[in-house]
Amino acid sequence: MTGDLLIRSVRPWPSGLGTAEVDVLCLAGRVASAGPDLEAPRGVAEVDGKGGVLLPSFTDAHAHLDSTRLGLPFRPHTAGVGLAELIDNDRRNWRSAEQDVAARATYTLGRTIAAGATFVRSHAQVDVDSGLERLEGVLAAKEAHAGRASVQVVAFPQCGILRDKGTAELLEAALLAGADLVGGLDPAGYDRDPVKHLDIVFGLADKHQRGVDVHLHDAGSLGAFQVELICERVAALDMRGDVTISHCFALSTVEEDRRRQLVDMLAENDVAVTTVAPGVREPLPLRQLRWEGVRLGLGQDGMRDYWSPYGTADMLDRTWQLAYRNGFRDDSLVEMCVDIATRGGASVLGETGHGVTEGAQADLVVVPGDSVTAAVMDRAPRTLVVHQGVLVAADGELLP
Amino acid sequence: MTGDLLIRSVRPWPSGLGTAEVDVLCLAGRVASAGPDLEAPRGVAEVDGKGGVLLPSFTDAHAHLDSTRLGLPFRPHTAGVGLAELIDNDRRNWRSAEQDVAARATYTLGRTIAAGATFVRSHAQVDVDSGLERLEGVLAAKEAHAGRASVQVVAFPQCGILRDKGTAELLEAALLAGADLVGGLDPAGYDRDPVKHLDIVFGLADKHQRGVDVHLHDAGSLGAFQVELICERVAALDMRGDVTISHCFALSTVEEDRRRQLVDMLAENDVAVTTVAPGVREPLPLRQLRWEGVRLGLGQDGMRDYWSPYGTADMLDRTWQLAYRNGFRDDSLVEMCVDIATRGGASVLGETGHGVTEGAQADLVVVPGDSVTAAVMDRAPRTLVVHQGVLVAADGELLP
Ligand SMILES: [Zn+2]
Ligand SMILES: [Zn+2]
Repeated sequence: MTGDLLIRSVRPWPSGLGTAEVDVLCLAGRVASAGPDLEAPRGVAEVDGKGGVLLPSFTDAHAHLDSTRLGLPFRPHTAGVGLAELIDNDRRNWRSAEQDVAARATYTLGRTIAAGATFVRSHAQVDVDSGLERLEGVLAAKEAHAGRASVQVVAFPQCGILRDKGTAELLEAALLAGADLVGGLDPAGYDRDPVKHLDIVFGLADKHQRGVDVHLHDAGSLGAFQVELICERVAALDMRGDVTISHCFALSTVEEDRRRQLVDMLAENDVAVTTVAPGVREPLPLRQLRWEGVRLGLGQDGMRDYWSPYGTADMLDRTWQLAYRNGFRDDSLVEMCVDIATRGGASVLGETGHGVTEGAQADLVVVPGDSVTAAVMDRAPRTLVVHQGVLVAADGELLP
Repeated sequence: MTGDLLIRSVRPWPSGLGTAEVDVLCLAGRVASAGPDLEAPRGVAEVDGKGGVLLPSFTDAHAHLDSTRLGLPFRPHTAGVGLAELIDNDRRNWRSAEQDVAARATYTLGRTIAAGATFVRSHAQVDVDSGLERLEGVLAAKEAHAGRASVQVVAFPQCGILRDKGTAELLEAALLAGADLVGGLDPAGYDRDPVKHLDIVFGLADKHQRGVDVHLHDAGSLGAFQVELICERVAALDMRGDVTISHCFALSTVEEDRRRQLVDMLAENDVAVTTVAPGVREPLPLRQLRWEGVRLGLGQDGMRDYWSPYGTADMLDRTWQLAYRNGFRDDSLVEMCVDIATRGGASVLGETGHGVTEGAQADLVVVPGDSVTAAVMDRAPRTLVVHQGVLVAADGELLP
């Protein structure tokens, strides 16, 4: 039956180094039982975990599948400095890519899955130049991998809503065309009117009963003010649990007292946060956010696109990056990064039944490594990737 | 003849994307000529570069081969916070490693070479507890790979010179036993007497006519003061070109005016700098250092040891880390990182004839990738590694 699978010889995490290998049985897409030398029920396929670590599958909580050039000939970086330059560079060039958005997004989503992520939230740029073309490409990729991953798509106003007249209408059209959430972008710093911008975003979300995911690069007190504006709207519209702030550099650029206020506000309104483990910007206060119960996910951001040459579609590689960038050496802290990259991101997406426990949805990944930390440091190809009890990738390669 | 080799189908760098493939002929350990469809002189072996990018080989300018646990069972991190705790943790545990220093250092040096580095400077801890045991292990590794890489060894007083009575004598014994350079460690912050510490280090260097490589984590004005002390000694002893400061966090933690003074002083005294691209400490002013002519190298630091789980022995991976940590997107900046990791490090080691030009010492690496930047982003296994015209590794594996 679909979703039945016996995974032999894995060491489930959390459980630490030295735990004995077990077999894990999935039935009807859920983790049914685990133990040594399980007997395979009749007709249930068996796969070999080769003694690897069994983790909850990864979640890419912040991707841009519509801009990726992974798999295409490498293109030198042509953008100048600053957000406006990056946006313009993309606008000048994306149409001349060797493949259309659907093909590129499908390829990169496939790589993402092969690397162990079966939950993905991708933004798709919606603007007056491209209309819904990029959204449709990402929706096609989602459809192409429908049996391999659960994908959410954000209608993302990359060029602003107020600066790019007509975008508000396009965002609504995007929601009707299949986008799951409505996005936003630096309501103050980029779009120049935080209240008007957020009122449009939350107005659409409320009208169509969708979630919200806002890119907020604005830092310091300006960023903090917008965190407040967002939380005020969440409270007013009773949208607790449905809103995410991506990047949220405000959290790492205000004084500790103010940060504490913001973290409390996020927790109180159950507003989630995602990070992409940036190389230059200060890391978010990961431990504080988790301690206070803020849902926290990790993402790839763009992947080798007109914005940046970085991004490999590999969430284990990105997990390494998060640990390295935070200077984490203790195994418990590296494991926290893995938890952020797996169950943390899933919780951002509202996937609550994710984990390596009986009854959990069987979205799992097996990765070679003496321990979870060793697996993060080695970043070896994934032995097995399972979505709802179905084997979707093995030895780093997507299955047909 | 030894050092004769014809490398087929490579794209030499620097030259940028789109350059035609050529063959490169090495004779007697030097780059002799390059061009399309070269004819192999009689008896010269041919190897296939498979269209990859041909770079100068990498230089690991700052390794700790005596502490590595790469290849051994992963061991959870057990150190507390701070330098003293890390030193103590290593002291408590290194003797109980599953293999001795020679075996561990030999394995990790082999991995380093297989990943494309044929110039290596390794520190070897010298203290009253271990005596010269760790140094001898690193010297054994150097000997084991004598035909594959040029290795320098620094007698490194990891536990201090003044705090660890008897170390000065051991450092001298180390130089007589085969160490190439004399090291130092935070003369003020750790060893508590910068003048006395540096007088011992430079006294030994002067007496035995050796180079110096000092670990200087001390930041801010205290670090800057020690940069001055070092440069004063370089000038007094006429040691221009023979001294390196590793880490040198002072450069990224003082005001711009002061930094400019320090950089000028380093340039004037031809004191080199190495970095390990740390995840948390502020990056060094790479462009400023290079612009002013300061020799600058990149290193692995410890590799999965009692200090930290990081470090893969792969200098291309570390190059990616340097670029990422500096937020470099432009190809020219990523290529600068490659230059730091290859020829820059070689210049720190005093290897001046390194490069992809006629007459250069044929220390070369071939790596798959559409361009140099793409190669850094992909970090694929090295197709070929050549040391003095001898093929020493292929497809990521060391040759016997
Ligand atoms: Zn984004
Ligand atoms: Zn070091």
